[in-house]
Amino acid sequence: RINSARLWDSLMEMALVGPGVAGGCNRQTLTDADNEGRHLFKRWCEAAGMTMGVDTMGNMFATRAGTDADALPVYMGSHLDTQPTGGKYDGVLGVLGALEVVRSMNDLGIRTKHPVVVTNWTNEEGARFAPAMLASGVFAGLHTEDYAKSRRDPEGKLFGEELARIGWVGDEPVGARKMHAMLELHIEQGPILEAAGKTIGVVTHGQGLWWLEITLTGKDAHTGSTPMAMRVNAGLGMARITERVHQIAMSHQPNAVGAVGQVFVHPNSRNVIPGKVVFTVDIRSPEQAKLDAMKAEVVRAAHAVAAELGLGCSIEDVGHFDPVTFDTGLVQIVRQSAEKLGYSQMDIVSGAGHDACWINRVAPTVMVMCPCVDGLSHNEAEEISPEWAAAGTDVLLHAVLEVAEV
Amino acid sequence: RINSARLWDSLMEMALVGPGVAGGCNRQTLTDADNEGRHLFKRWCEAAGMTMGVDTMGNMFATRAGTDADALPVYMGSHLDTQPTGGKYDGVLGVLGALEVVRSMNDLGIRTKHPVVVTNWTNEEGARFAPAMLASGVFAGLHTEDYAKSRRDPEGKLFGEELARIGWVGDEPVGARKMHAMLELHIEQGPILEAAGKTIGVVTHGQGLWWLEITLTGKDAHTGSTPMAMRVNAGLGMARITERVHQIAMSHQPNAVGAVGQVFVHPNSRNVIPGKVVFTVDIRSPEQAKLDAMKAEVVRAAHAVAAELGLGCSIEDVGHFDPVTFDTGLVQIVRQSAEKLGYSQMDIVSGAGHDACWINRVAPTVMVMCPCVDGLSHNEAEEISPEWAAAGTDVLLHAVLEVAEV
Ligand SMILES: NC(=O)NCCC(=O)O
Ligand SMILES: NC(=O)NCCC(=O)O
Repeated sequence: RINSARLWDSLMEMALVGPGVAGGCNRQTLTDADNEGRHLFKRWCEAAGMTMGVDTMGNMFATRAGTDADALPVYMGSHLDTQPTGGKYDGVLGVLGALEVVRSMNDLGIRTKHPVVVTNWTNEEGARFAPAMLASGVFAGLHTEDYAKSRRDPEGKLFGEELARIGWVGDEPVGARKMHAMLELHIEQGPILEAAGKTIGVVTHGQGLWWLEITLTGKDAHTGSTPMAMRVNAGLGMARITERVHQIAMSHQPNAVGAVGQVFVHPNSRNVIPGKVVFTVDIRSPEQAKLDAMKAEVVRAAHAVAAELGLGCSIEDVGHFDPVTFDTGLVQIVRQSAEKLGYSQMDIVSGAGHDACWINRVAPTVMVMCPCVDGLSHNEAEEISPEWAAAGTDVLLHAVLEVAEV
Repeated sequence: RINSARLWDSLMEMALVGPGVAGGCNRQTLTDADNEGRHLFKRWCEAAGMTMGVDTMGNMFATRAGTDADALPVYMGSHLDTQPTGGKYDGVLGVLGALEVVRSMNDLGIRTKHPVVVTNWTNEEGARFAPAMLASGVFAGLHTEDYAKSRRDPEGKLFGEELARIGWVGDEPVGARKMHAMLELHIEQGPILEAAGKTIGVVTHGQGLWWLEITLTGKDAHTGSTPMAMRVNAGLGMARITERVHQIAMSHQPNAVGAVGQVFVHPNSRNVIPGKVVFTVDIRSPEQAKLDAMKAEVVRAAHAVAAELGLGCSIEDVGHFDPVTFDTGLVQIVRQSAEKLGYSQMDIVSGAGHDACWINRVAPTVMVMCPCVDGLSHNEAEEISPEWAAAGTDVLLHAVLEVAEV
């Protein structure tokens, strides 16, 4: 078993880097706080005897040598970046849990045939620079590095420039590493495990996603002296499309979700009819057919609303992945590890996107989940128990020992 | 007749202070640009032989002496502040047109019995600090000065501190001045005069208004892993209320308007269901009964939407005025002035709020309007012709000469 107190202490120490305003974290990708968190993680890895490699997307790889020089490494890890008002565990548990696995192996004097690597993927959240899982997406060949580095945050800053600014452009080419397997521990971020009273989620699938960015163009005009019939109200268009996104998700139950999370109204003045609104749509489903249908329905609805209000409408695809099926052999190993350790478990589909979803394209991959209180995540109030964190990390340890061959 | 070229030159020179990004202006109240505009206006007034008084709300009063030391002054003026993406004429024409009236009286050697005062009212727009017409509202006794000075902009800055920062806290007590009459020239900001082919609008009434600020409170949560049934989506609530505001205004046609102009979504991240949205509602009608009914319907609709989505809902009244009837004697003088000058004219109801609407409570008041292209205002593309500006200012001159007694 891993050292639960040490794991918890590290989680709490990392949470002090880029603290939030309500008990959580604001350690958004490529900020000064991200830089500080990366340095802390690097110090911890080196203290645990690992050597750090960094690729040109800023992905961090801390390696513990194996006994067979020719064996491909087994990867563990997740991300240290957070939402602007994020929790202390989303991503962080997967990185620091992996670090704890190595620390425990050191304590117990365990050697593995395969090297073991603890990874921190850059910009998993996608909150500052869309899309999410940007750097693991480049690693897996889904995006070019040029595409990734030319993404802009809402202030117009470039990903590439911000990565250089915080000093984490490494020298490894992205995606050059070959993997024997990758295992990612993560909090569920949803209510299923807690409701079912299970400690471990064995993640068999991940749902697919479309992220759209819709720009509606109307005409700024006075809210008082412009007759209703003359208005070209981009805010009203945004409102109607927001309702339609909700209805479309509701019409594909069970197992589909949809929402508008981000809205920029221009000029955003009380007595000006909005002349332009830029907003984002997030739709997901574990079923490919549903996902495709929802995307088409949202696009159709947006153009229909724009036409009825006389608005210009442009729709940009800013992120997409298809539903994912994880490696069945690895899934079986996770299931058996939980069983052996005596933790209650169930199979689960990941509602969120994860780096493992992209890495799955280039290596056998699996995820382990533990519950979070009230299913709440992407909220500073996100909470887990030390017991849940330890259970997930125990399962990760045993699965990795199996995969990396003691 | 006034000097049309000089008036236009002054309008264009003022437009260079706080320029916009698309040909208009961003000279929001109590900004550095506002300060600069005030100094320019002051220099012009002094060059025209007037003496400047400033009250503790920053309202500016430039006086041209009359021949009768005991006669109450006749006021003209409007405001120099603009929307964040505002036009070059909204308010400015009323101030610089009044200045041109004095310059023309100087040229022609005309003396009046009553002193004549050119006024710049602070924060008419209400875009940065709600409500609109804040300082004329204090002058007219509608608000206390403490209330006005404690208003905050979206960044949390205080009106009182910003007024002191730009150095325009004068020494006159607000509202101490007694007025014989007040006349305000303004662009229509709507399409009626242009559509009817009339050069002058004789403003008989102003419509009433309610400004509400609605805060919906839900729960930040992950857009992917939170099932639809568990969501408490404040953004969806905002969307539904935006639609209801539109429907309510449409159900009170003709002559009612309603829109949501400003929206702040928290945390405003693509993959977070909005946990809080703060947005503004602007509803107006020239009929008191309609205005009251619409207010009640919007409040009812907001609470109903909040209840159906499980959201917290609080509604703050941030601005209100009842429909206004201007002084019938002054209206008649404006009508006759336009007639004498040979300008086509029609009676009109003001769709926007104006300082004259508040001053009407404490002195006989009237407004003169000229058309604007496509009825467009609160837009950097706001445009008028030099001929329209001159016609409105000519009518203002003749009306003032009548009221101030040559
Ligand atoms: N795990 C997680 O929150 N990832 C961010 C990408 C997503 O929205 O699914
Ligand atoms: N004239 C004008 O635009 N005033 C601002 C207040 C309002 O919105 O009516």
